Amino acid sequence: VARDSIGVGLLGLGVVGSGVARILLERASTYRERVGVPLILRRVLVREPEKTRAVELPADLVVTDPRLILEDDSIDIVVEAMGGLKPAYELLAEALTRRKFVVTANKEVMATHSSELLGIAQRSGVDILFEASVGGGIPLIAPLKRDLLANEITGLSAIINGTTNYILTRMAAEGITLEDALSQAQALGYAEPDPAYDIEGTDAAFKLAIMAGLAFRTEVVPSQVYREGIGRLTPRDFRYAAELGYSIKLLAICRRDDGVIRARVHPAFLPADELLAKVDGVYNAVQIDGDLTGKVLFQGQGAGSLPTTSAVVADIIDCAHDIALGIAQQPQWRINPNAEVGGMDDLETRYYIRLTVADRPGVFAEIATQLGKNMISIASVIQKEADETAQSAEIVIMTHRSRESALRAAIEDLSALDCVFEVGNYIRVEG
Amino acid sequence: VARDSIGVGLLGLGVVGSGVARILLERASTYRERVGVPLILRRVLVREPEKTRAVELPADLVVTDPRLILEDDSIDIVVEAMGGLKPAYELLAEALTRRKFVVTANKEVMATHSSELLGIAQRSGVDILFEASVGGGIPLIAPLKRDLLANEITGLSAIINGTTNYILTRMAAEGITLEDALSQAQALGYAEPDPAYDIEGTDAAFKLAIMAGLAFRTEVVPSQVYREGIGRLTPRDFRYAAELGYSIKLLAICRRDDGVIRARVHPAFLPADELLAKVDGVYNAVQIDGDLTGKVLFQGQGAGSLPTTSAVVADIIDCAHDIALGIAQQPQWRINPNAEVGGMDDLETRYYIRLTVADRPGVFAEIATQLGKNMISIASVIQKEADETAQSAEIVIMTHRSRESALRAAIEDLSALDCVFEVGNYIRVEG
Repeated sequence: VARDSIGVGLLGLGVVGSGVARILLERASTYRERVGVPLILRRVLVREPEKTRAVELPADLVVTDPRLILEDDSIDIVVEAMGGLKPAYELLAEALTRRKFVVTANKEVMATHSSELLGIAQRSGVDILFEASVGGGIPLIAPLKRDLLANEITGLSAIINGTTNYILTRMAAEGITLEDALSQAQALGYAEPDPAYDIEGTDAAFKLAIMAGLAFRTEVVPSQVYREGIGRLTPRDFRYAAELGYSIKLLAICRRDDGVIRARVHPAFLPADELLAKVDGVYNAVQIDGDLTGKVLFQGQGAGSLPTTSAVVADIIDCAHDIALGIAQQPQWRINPNAEVGGMDDLETRYYIRLTVADRPGVFAEIATQLGKNMISIASVIQKEADETAQSAEIVIMTHRSRESALRAAIEDLSALDCVFEVGNYIRVEG
Repeated sequence: VARDSIGVGLLGLGVVGSGVARILLERASTYRERVGVPLILRRVLVREPEKTRAVELPADLVVTDPRLILEDDSIDIVVEAMGGLKPAYELLAEALTRRKFVVTANKEVMATHSSELLGIAQRSGVDILFEASVGGGIPLIAPLKRDLLANEITGLSAIINGTTNYILTRMAAEGITLEDALSQAQALGYAEPDPAYDIEGTDAAFKLAIMAGLAFRTEVVPSQVYREGIGRLTPRDFRYAAELGYSIKLLAICRRDDGVIRARVHPAFLPADELLAKVDGVYNAVQIDGDLTGKVLFQGQGAGSLPTTSAVVADIIDCAHDIALGIAQQPQWRINPNAEVGGMDDLETRYYIRLTVADRPGVFAEIATQLGKNMISIASVIQKEADETAQSAEIVIMTHRSRESALRAAIEDLSALDCVFEVGNYIRVEG
């Protein structure tokens, strides 16, 4: 099938959309060479056509009615950079139904509706690519779909939210509180005025759902991802982590154990010599554990206009190759639709527990008894910083591998003890 | 084009070949699912059929005559895991001529003969894939060919030889000599009894030639790669590097400056907070600088039977998809055949210079005069460890950006000075 040109319709002209539009226009001749035929930006959907933007577009390109893109036969590829579920999902579903290839940067849509969209794409003989939905400019989706295909993926651990990684890096380096680190991040533009979406792990959970689905070739939706934000972390936790040889990172983890997939986002202690423990600042990194490759790490800028544009345009070129070659059948990568996704109760990992306790003899015996009763075995204990006025002391316990349900029961039992003034924190220990 | 099955012929049954054969046999049903049709290992070429091996093969699979693979019409993909230029190159050229897809793990062949092989593949409507030729199980070739296609790659820096990285890591951690670190590496099986191929940078230069060609979409051959091994590094250099906030790594670097590509393998000072500076032990890592993505790092095990098998089998599956879909035309990625590859004279970088000098007044003025005469500008100087008996002192100079040709002339001039007893070392400073 010979083609003169390949037409692109762009939905959205925000941070990512402007980057995509600008780069497609500026590099038209380079991409023509790389694709074999010209890649032509035909229409751009915006909400407010009068708004001033980072990119200057010929006026006849800009439309406010999505039908002018969906119903345009000269548009082969629809690129979505609107974000949010509505109206993005419906527009993408219709584009695929109309046999247009789709490239999207939308993590909510891909985390929530991938099954429907992949199904429509398959029935229409087109494809939907979404490299830009996770990890900005870092190639992640393609390696999972393709380059690591010989492996059984046993697990994946990721630092996939730059805002929280910047905050945790500052807290570790300067011993400051979450509030102070957040203010720094906001001042630098690394955190939103309303930071909840990042801080509470919501952003990371969407991205993990997408990666978990790819790693295990099944569907994992955000509601199946356990989620815990960084809000409970204190300077004390960072101090003890450093003393014990660990970093604290907000990890997005999925593993398959005994056939059950578990996906979770939470702060974790990570041995300081692990690859991911060294990933600092706004960098993102994903470590994939393949049974043949061992650990493979991908690291880079996980957000921003140009890195995300890089991912979007690479997907556009990939679609363009398929269109130019007339490929009507795509390799199906989601082949285990019914894999079991489990909850947290049966998770087994190690834990750090920080307690404020009465500073008197016999206290540790009481604590150890409660842990033992719940089958939690202690790996090490450090008693820290007695406060003579309050007659209290701080105890840090590192456990051996334990079941999450047992650990939670133990924490409840410990809280009920008279000698335990406060359960300061408990944090999972990975790696 | 509907196909019942896809046939694989394997050349070589060494470390990599055995892994490929075993995994193809063990995972036949998994790969059948992933490809859509069975992937059948039909023939394996060995030199000594009687030899005991890690993998047990049905006797009728094993052949000693390559013609039984090249001339077998039921073989669609020829996988080469022999290594070395002869007879691998001729066998691969013939396989491509006979319209078989080729997957190779052979860095010598791909570094030296890629143009010929890619040309034959294109004329025959097939493809030659070589992910396993660089970086073992780390996806590198595919990201360069495809996922970073929207970018202009401005440069690439890599730790691509695990043996030397292990040795340098030990030298840095323990303050030991190269000889002692090499003995440790040999005892652990990380270095060959004859380590020259790794230590002198030959292995890294082959791999860099391949990556440079991909990054700049042109041909770079090993003779165009400047090469300097780790043999001149001493415990002193590591001590000064640490004091100044640097790591020492054997880097494989290619950059394009003013349109001229330069590719070089040599030890380098790297600021300790750079991503590559933290890559320790036998790990490999490649940092790609894209003009859109910024720095992207890929890290993992760069050698070994199973990681390399992962790369080979991923390529086999990729070819199988193309064969199953009947794709006869491949995207051409080498589109700048005549890019200019330059030598070292015009390189501009910073330098570390270590001198043993006479411990008397006026010496530094003499040295500074020689450097100034050669247009080398000094960023900092530290005078170290006067040896009273020998009446000598050690001076460490860090330069500003300078031309390599000027630096070499300056080193010659310094060597000629009476007050300079020895030029201990000079090492390029990157990052």
